[in-house]
Amino acid sequence: MTRTPLLPLELGDARIWIKAECLQQGGSFKLRGAMNRLLLLSEAERARGVVAFSSGNHAQGVAIAAKRLGIAATIVMPADAPAVKRDATLAAGARIVPYDRATESREEIGARIAREQGSALVPSFDDVDVIEGQGSAGIEIAEQLGASPDTVLVPCGGGGLSAGIALALPDAQIMTVEPCGWDDMARSIAAGEPVPVIEPAPPTRCDALQTKLVSPLTLDALRDRGARGIAVTEGEIETAMAFAMRQLRIVAEPGGSVALAAVLAGKAGPISDRTVVVVSGGNVDPALYAEILAANQAAPATR
Amino acid sequence: MTRTPLLPLELGDARIWIKAECLQQGGSFKLRGAMNRLLLLSEAERARGVVAFSSGNHAQGVAIAAKRLGIAATIVMPADAPAVKRDATLAAGARIVPYDRATESREEIGARIAREQGSALVPSFDDVDVIEGQGSAGIEIAEQLGASPDTVLVPCGGGGLSAGIALALPDAQIMTVEPCGWDDMARSIAAGEPVPVIEPAPPTRCDALQTKLVSPLTLDALRDRGARGIAVTEGEIETAMAFAMRQLRIVAEPGGSVALAAVLAGKAGPISDRTVVVVSGGNVDPALYAEILAANQAAPATR
Repeated sequence: MTRTPLLPLELGDARIWIKAECLQQGGSFKLRGAMNRLLLLSEAERARGVVAFSSGNHAQGVAIAAKRLGIAATIVMPADAPAVKRDATLAAGARIVPYDRATESREEIGARIAREQGSALVPSFDDVDVIEGQGSAGIEIAEQLGASPDTVLVPCGGGGLSAGIALALPDAQIMTVEPCGWDDMARSIAAGEPVPVIEPAPPTRCDALQTKLVSPLTLDALRDRGARGIAVTEGEIETAMAFAMRQLRIVAEPGGSVALAAVLAGKAGPISDRTVVVVSGGNVDPALYAEILAANQAAPATR
Repeated sequence: MTRTPLLPLELGDARIWIKAECLQQGGSFKLRGAMNRLLLLSEAERARGVVAFSSGNHAQGVAIAAKRLGIAATIVMPADAPAVKRDATLAAGARIVPYDRATESREEIGARIAREQGSALVPSFDDVDVIEGQGSAGIEIAEQLGASPDTVLVPCGGGGLSAGIALALPDAQIMTVEPCGWDDMARSIAAGEPVPVIEPAPPTRCDALQTKLVSPLTLDALRDRGARGIAVTEGEIETAMAFAMRQLRIVAEPGGSVALAAVLAGKAGPISDRTVVVVSGGNVDPALYAEILAANQAAPATR
């Protein structure tokens, strides 16, 4: 595991902090939860391998953790996952089973493989050990800041990272950030129960955040801690990606940039030197990244 | 100062380490030397301000250090410096005096301004305090690795960073890396005295490494420690920039990528888990960066 840096960022007269999880091994925070889960398997379970389904970042996290521990990994991945994520999962030695995002159920495919092989399924967020592992990012934040942050803005798909950080940092205001139209965590927090994404959901560049239903586990952890939800537009996300390249020199993928996007768009409320923004991943196809950088060269208004 | 991360990088069966100085404040290692130099000024000297000449990264380092310490900074900068570096220097509150790289001498302009204002000149590399400050990167490397590295590959312009690291890590083999045709440090090490770049030098994207003559100070430190010099092509540099984006999720500017380029091109000799590659800066104009990423999407042969 890499202790990812907490990078200072000056915004006008304020200075905030960026937890750069895109610099984690595998290019996202996902290794944290996967490693924590796999370390808790028995010897017999390890011998039978593990299965996971993922659009890519969780796949890489599981594949790398499994490789380190000498465990065989099978990943059920959408056929249209970014090549950069697919290639890296293969490079880590995992087997990939592709499926059609529109017509097949990854849950069913994953469950069937787990049954056939007797393998443990490693959920991407609906699991206490996975959530606890993701929370290690929160513990590092407090150590690096030398204090509890006031506010932590976290990109949110299923809510594993934000719930883990909420549990690790009980004194911080957690804000989950999602793409507009995919803000089911925000609406679930408001409703008090998991509310699915409204179909048809709008297109989004955030392949990592296209979770259609959060779990009671992540939702309850966030509600108990008084978390709030924010939604950002695709344009705000692209602006944040270009900003991260210029001002922080980190590569942030669309889904990894949403929390930074919320701050830059002025949607996050007051900021201070106790504000922490998580950039959760940096796995973006180079061609798409080049296109977004070329099209978003103006500095955002808040600078 | 940011304690920049030492990131693991798997290359085939080997694992090496990347010191990501592009994540330093100001986007390069230059803040280290500038801060060390400015902290040693007397109160009277601070009141008269400082002057520096730089293609951009040293400018930002001096501007940021000066701002932190409440010192006025004047930067003599080539008129064709990347906009991203010029803008950031202005944003840090420094005054910029532009000059024509082809017809004017930045040394003369800097000396004149220093004389008129009574200001201290902050050299970009030919200064013991600046070199010592850059060496703090080497001290961090040893702490983060938990041991002295065997080999450290360092991008080299005037040699401040490589000399500083050589002094900080006496047990490591230092390799300076320069663009082909600008490898005057390599030739100076071989010659035993400063040897200028042979004119006309070829065009290079490495604006940060276009130093035409190294100083006896940096050369002697490197020679004393048995440093060796390597040169890389522009194609190898672009490959390394694209690789850093995909595999490390860091933004590396051309000059900051040369040491990584040497490793990926197989020019660095044997590598091991005691090999450290310094990525020294990440200030690159977004349009150029997008262009390089779009044109260099194939993985390098060494992966």
